[in-house]
Amino acid sequence: MYGRYTQDLGTFAKDEAARLRLQEGDTPRPRRPSELLEYTQGRCAPCRVCALQCQRFLISKVGEDWVFLILLGLVMALVSWAMDFAIATCLQAQKWMYGGLDTNVLLQYMAWVTYPTVLITFSAGFTQILAPQAVGSGIPEMKTILRGIVLKEYLTLKTFVAKVIGLTCALGSGMPLGKEGPFVHIASMCAALLSRFLSLFGGFYENEARNIEMLAAACAVGVGCCFAAPIGGVLFSIEVTSTFFAVRNYWRGFFAATFSAFIFRVLAVWNKDEETITALFKTRFRLDFPFDLQELPAFAVIGIASGFGGALFVYLNRKIVQFMRRQKTINRFLMKKRLLFPALVTLIISTLTFPPGFGQFMAGQLTQKDTLVTLFDNQTWAKQGINDEFEYLGILEAWRHPRSNVFVTLVVFILMKFWMSALATTIPVPCGAFMPVFVIGAAFGRLVGESMAAWFPDGIHTDSNTYRIVPGGYAVVGAAALSGAVTHTVSTAVIVFELTGQISHILPVMIAVILANAVAQSLQPSLYDSIIRIKKLPYLPELGWGHHEKYNVRVEDIMVRDIRYVTLNCKYRDLQQVLHSTKMKNLPLVESAESMILLGSIERTQVGALLSNQLSPQRRLLALRQKALSEDGHRLSDSSIRFQISTDTSSGTPARPALRKPLKPALKRVPSSPADSPPAGSTDHAGIALKSLFCANAATEPTEAQGTAYHKAKRVRISIVEEMILGDQVTPAEILEWEEQQLDQQVDFSSAKIDPAPFQLVEHTSLHKTHTIFSLLGLDHAFVTSIGRLVGMVSLKELRKAIEGSLTGKGVKVRPPLASFRDSTASTTEADTTALRQLWDRHQHHHMPREAGPGGDNDDDTPK
Amino acid sequence: MYGRYTQDLGTFAKDEAARLRLQEGDTPRPRRPSELLEYTQGRCAPCRVCALQCQRFLISKVGEDWVFLILLGLVMALVSWAMDFAIATCLQAQKWMYGGLDTNVLLQYMAWVTYPTVLITFSAGFTQILAPQAVGSGIPEMKTILRGIVLKEYLTLKTFVAKVIGLTCALGSGMPLGKEGPFVHIASMCAALLSRFLSLFGGFYENEARNIEMLAAACAVGVGCCFAAPIGGVLFSIEVTSTFFAVRNYWRGFFAATFSAFIFRVLAVWNKDEETITALFKTRFRLDFPFDLQELPAFAVIGIASGFGGALFVYLNRKIVQFMRRQKTINRFLMKKRLLFPALVTLIISTLTFPPGFGQFMAGQLTQKDTLVTLFDNQTWAKQGINDEFEYLGILEAWRHPRSNVFVTLVVFILMKFWMSALATTIPVPCGAFMPVFVIGAAFGRLVGESMAAWFPDGIHTDSNTYRIVPGGYAVVGAAALSGAVTHTVSTAVIVFELTGQISHILPVMIAVILANAVAQSLQPSLYDSIIRIKKLPYLPELGWGHHEKYNVRVEDIMVRDIRYVTLNCKYRDLQQVLHSTKMKNLPLVESAESMILLGSIERTQVGALLSNQLSPQRRLLALRQKALSEDGHRLSDSSIRFQISTDTSSGTPARPALRKPLKPALKRVPSSPADSPPAGSTDHAGIALKSLFCANAATEPTEAQGTAYHKAKRVRISIVEEMILGDQVTPAEILEWEEQQLDQQVDFSSAKIDPAPFQLVEHTSLHKTHTIFSLLGLDHAFVTSIGRLVGMVSLKELRKAIEGSLTGKGVKVRPPLASFRDSTASTTEADTTALRQLWDRHQHHHMPREAGPGGDNDDDTPK
Repeated sequence: MYGRYTQDLGTFAKDEAARLRLQEGDTPRPRRPSELLEYTQGRCAPCRVCALQCQRFLISKVGEDWVFLILLGLVMALVSWAMDFAIATCLQAQKWMYGGLDTNVLLQYMAWVTYPTVLITFSAGFTQILAPQAVGSGIPEMKTILRGIVLKEYLTLKTFVAKVIGLTCALGSGMPLGKEGPFVHIASMCAALLSRFLSLFGGFYENEARNIEMLAAACAVGVGCCFAAPIGGVLFSIEVTSTFFAVRNYWRGFFAATFSAFIFRVLAVWNKDEETITALFKTRFRLDFPFDLQELPAFAVIGIASGFGGALFVYLNRKIVQFMRRQKTINRFLMKKRLLFPALVTLIISTLTFPPGFGQFMAGQLTQKDTLVTLFDNQTWAKQGINDEFEYLGILEAWRHPRSNVFVTLVVFILMKFWMSALATTIPVPCGAFMPVFVIGAAFGRLVGESMAAWFPDGIHTDSNTYRIVPGGYAVVGAAALSGAVTHTVSTAVIVFELTGQISHILPVMIAVILANAVAQSLQPSLYDSIIRIKKLPYLPELGWGHHEKYNVRVEDIMVRDIRYVTLNCKYRDLQQVLHSTKMKNLPLVESAESMILLGSIERTQVGALLSNQLSPQRRLLALRQKALSEDGHRLSDSSIRFQISTDTSSGTPARPALRKPLKPALKRVPSSPADSPPAGSTDHAGIALKSLFCANAATEPTEAQGTAYHKAKRVRISIVEEMILGDQVTPAEILEWEEQQLDQQVDFSSAKIDPAPFQLVEHTSLHKTHTIFSLLGLDHAFVTSIGRLVGMVSLKELRKAIEGSLTGKGVKVRPPLASFRDSTASTTEADTTALRQLWDRHQHHHMPREAGPGGDNDDDTPK
Repeated sequence: MYGRYTQDLGTFAKDEAARLRLQEGDTPRPRRPSELLEYTQGRCAPCRVCALQCQRFLISKVGEDWVFLILLGLVMALVSWAMDFAIATCLQAQKWMYGGLDTNVLLQYMAWVTYPTVLITFSAGFTQILAPQAVGSGIPEMKTILRGIVLKEYLTLKTFVAKVIGLTCALGSGMPLGKEGPFVHIASMCAALLSRFLSLFGGFYENEARNIEMLAAACAVGVGCCFAAPIGGVLFSIEVTSTFFAVRNYWRGFFAATFSAFIFRVLAVWNKDEETITALFKTRFRLDFPFDLQELPAFAVIGIASGFGGALFVYLNRKIVQFMRRQKTINRFLMKKRLLFPALVTLIISTLTFPPGFGQFMAGQLTQKDTLVTLFDNQTWAKQGINDEFEYLGILEAWRHPRSNVFVTLVVFILMKFWMSALATTIPVPCGAFMPVFVIGAAFGRLVGESMAAWFPDGIHTDSNTYRIVPGGYAVVGAAALSGAVTHTVSTAVIVFELTGQISHILPVMIAVILANAVAQSLQPSLYDSIIRIKKLPYLPELGWGHHEKYNVRVEDIMVRDIRYVTLNCKYRDLQQVLHSTKMKNLPLVESAESMILLGSIERTQVGALLSNQLSPQRRLLALRQKALSEDGHRLSDSSIRFQISTDTSSGTPARPALRKPLKPALKRVPSSPADSPPAGSTDHAGIALKSLFCANAATEPTEAQGTAYHKAKRVRISIVEEMILGDQVTPAEILEWEEQQLDQQVDFSSAKIDPAPFQLVEHTSLHKTHTIFSLLGLDHAFVTSIGRLVGMVSLKELRKAIEGSLTGKGVKVRPPLASFRDSTASTTEADTTALRQLWDRHQHHHMPREAGPGGDNDDDTPK
């Protein structure tokens, strides 16, 4: 067991890729020159030997984890810093253009609108062309990858370039887009590329388990250096990407994220942006009395409202995507003009935020960063409802409107930004939703805080000292609560502490975040899970908050009982039938149909390979030649040589078009047992078994892949017919007869790759435990056995259905909650006993013939 | 599989206990009166029905997780607060006594020394008498329990009371002892008791998986409310107790810990200790320039030195315990006078800290809390080396000594407290080591900080503004680093932020903690792992930082190949032989010795039960009676009645002493195959099979249990002999003959409890993966199979040996690090193929007789 359990999913493919890479990249191994050097005694050989020894030492160090993590942290800090610099420059350019054209409002508007539209369109086009995988957040994909599923092209250099440039342009446009999701993806790609690069120097980076560990650390680095928040980054990345977390990998994340955050902040100091290392959005709330106990209800209200808001955001985001997909006409139009949708959305949003226009009511001229800085401001804006008393300085000016008060501005800002962010994050550019949501949350918190300050102008505390209310603290609480609700995480609390550099509001933040999570989790999935479902990535739903009923549902209630299997002593005809009748990707291999003892599992492709190998033209020709050799030794040996040449050419060159026409009808589905039906056309029945095999294969693939399979089948058929024509002494009838004969032979499994220990569950395993095991080990199916006998199978699909449907009881027998353990043990023993008795009885019958057989000689390796 | 994989370890026992509890506690089930009420139509029946419905609603709510967590948080906050209050009173009393007697130094000394000695002695005695399990930290035990292993009496009310009272007294004595470890244990006991209490109202609390989840949350609550640090508490508890953490349980910990910390702080506000909710050890470092980049090397030095210091602490602590155990004379003496050791240690430590004595050089009069407050102080004590410039106020006075400077005081404090803490934590009272270590770390940080301040009196920053060095910040860094090094955790960083209420020193703290961890982890196990090893609790060592070689060691290198097994068609004689020849607790059940297909595993006790059942006197009498019935129908039926009476009495009353003497020699070990040796004495050979069975059982138990097994075996023998005497018509020879006959029968497994899917690994699983699976699923053994065939077994013992010995290569074949994946796949396929071929060949031979047999009729439930 577990030799290959994750390999079922795709590790095998990964290993294959690693091996290919090894073959390609490592042919000039760094060892070889040194090995050769001992023999080539040149002039400066000693010093070269010394240099090589140094190199070897360095290479041995390169294998250490911490070297990798430091490199990763360093690279990500540099990437992050460079991107921040580029984004700031882009935003500066827009501000400069907008400021320079203040003589003409129309020109100003044109500049304000065109600039982001061009950037977003470029970003969308660039990613579309270079690597469409770079679109979107990246966290849902990383969550899937860390479950052990291989997503193609997700961690390549091309995607890396597309994501970095696309994200820089998208964020430089000033749209309400975030960067932490893409940063997780960028860091993961960095780790994958770095590990591939370092594997040129040593063999340590080829291990799959290690790569997963490093990817998990990379996710932490991504969040950590995006916010300069190492602790929050590690926790956030754990919460959004993992189901079970190995505590021994904890330090990796902390180490790399701290190093990365350190370098990131040092670069800011070095660039004279800052005097020393401080928080990104530093707050200066008073420490001695940050908040009063009686303010806690207000914080709780922020939490609950954020919970509803977060759920609404996820819902809105999903509905927009679904609406765009469902509308056929819009969809068809947009498919043609892929760049129109991003341009249109950008146009609408930037028009609405145009500062002299509607933007004046929603602080439209502020960038995301400036908005946050102002929202976390230490001062109270609306003292006693008269905002004139307060002197707005610098960028705070944006929040003031001469004809309305700050409450109106905040409400308009929240409402407009809400739908804008939900809409903007559906644009096909690399972008995240964390930061926009964070800003909206901060604005909401500020609104509540300002209201409280207006309500209690002298603070709530009744003692001697007057402590005024700090609305900035409310903004911090709101930001953490709303972002926590959208992402279903608690660690946003830690992120805000690290972002603001103050931990004084720890209790209000924790209370609000937990309440927001409680509300949001009971209403909607997290944003990332929602995207996973939209993108139809394989997933396993979480068990949710209250899940008593999951303890009472068992595997026997949800498993598929009627499964196809392969027996050890089966014939090739049985294999063919199994392939026809099921679409399972892994077939169980049992000892025999009577005993049903599970021996292992075999992949569908392996079964197909066995079958096609058995019926291969090469084998047929070989068999026919041997048969004919006794009749006529000369003529056939000549034709076989001719055939060998012909197959070589047919694989390289396309088939002759003249031959294609008559073969088309042969691809219709044939009856599942071809032996029973009489041959209809002599040409069509050549290689009938192979053809039906390929039809079955095509049926297993999704419908969009049908075309490819069709062509593949056709091409194979053509090569068969070619060979038939060349080796024209074989009649179709003979071929059919030979194939039937071949199908009746027993299967020789020795060439097939068998998973010797597939995952097994018993019928009485609870749904809760099954879920735990599936998510712990990243399984996608498990066989259900009873004393070694195969009785059923559970796959991710059944499990998902059971979890999502268990509340409605659809298809699932929900036991009464008080069904105690004693009942279950009783029934367990009973059922087990019956099965065992059966097996035992069978053995009683079989005992005599088996002992008489020669199998008893195998007993040498297991002394009794 | 996994029907029972954790149950192997002890869940079964837990379930049994739960069932027994159910039988005891739940007989007056709350449902029953309501069910009866519908039939008893009394006067106020309607309102009683209504009340019952309300009750039912409440009961249904009681089952919710959040109710449980709120209750847990509430209870723990109250317990924590009450204990803090009691401890503070105790310390106050000592201070008052010491202050009141300042006229006479001798009296003062007597008071200073006697008070803690009495308290510690009382604490040691009280815990010893009430519940010895309450001694020590509790974290090592909780780590073991969360691995799925049941430790007896660890979560009972008795232990709870002992721990709470013992800990209060121990901490009230003013010794350098901590409270966070015991708090973890107290919170877990709270959770267990609460869950048992709530299970009176509903059935939801009986689930084992849920209880483990709740215990994990309780650990977080324990740390969280001890420091009023919810986030740090959760993270710390995860790091010290878990190997793999379920992210879905994350919110539980946060929820309960936040609630608990909230209530804990609110109680302080309510008690007028504080004006509002603030950090426990609030610092007031400046926010705008907390530290200079050029100070980072000093922080790194603190980290590295703390790493060495932490390792030294763990080493010292272990050596003290081992020394005390090894010295036979000391040991014997202390065993007699259990309370002498605590009293002696307390006497020494309190003598040394006596303020007018040596204590004046080490701030001996300060309590732990005051020490921390002073060490985290914002001011610089030693400005330019002349401490006279600085005005020591209040408790800071303690650090000043008229004839020496503050550096000497700090160095003496660190050195003295270091060994004192290491010694004090070995006292058999409930105590932790976190807080003492934390204080020592803070002192060390302060020392470095003061040195830096003396070295750079005007700060390092070269720009216009002069920012002086903040030694308090160094103290914070040192505290986090040393406590992180001792416990091998990173989350101490978060704890210090929450404790001090300032996060401005995040980067120095993180850097120091990570460096300290790196150094300490490479030198010593964590304190908790060290205690686990000393206490010989079952554990699995961590894989450590650099573990490349673990990827290259495989299961086949470490597994035990020569294992005993039970076949499905074996005879009772085989069972007997297996029991004699092995000590394994779980025996594999294979189909037959030829096929070796693993069907399941059977517990040793079950095998013993099968065998003793087969050879039971009842069955023998029954058989003999049936045999005799054909000869003489009357006499035997009478004797069998007599026998039944006799067994009833013999089980209840002690055996007659007269019969004991002649049986003693029968308990000598007999040769393993009793059938071959001729009977030596006629009486001794009666029930010889049973006797040898019991001898085998006794051999499996540890030596100290031998006596009990011996008596048990004796008692059974006696009852056999009694029955022999009563049914005196059977001669010993007849019994022997009957037993031999019985042993030759085939085993009927239908009454045995078989684990239908034990855990399986394949030979090529890497050590790394095996370790992951063992720690993920909490296994203690796994069978190694190859295409269903049993080839070996790996238990925790082999794994532990392999991990700890893999660096030295002892008994483990260490592969070269560049043994690439390709080689391993090639060999995998080859080996698998050979095994498969073997199996397949066997089937070829057996094919014909099997198809002829009646087994083919079983094919109905699995359509093909």
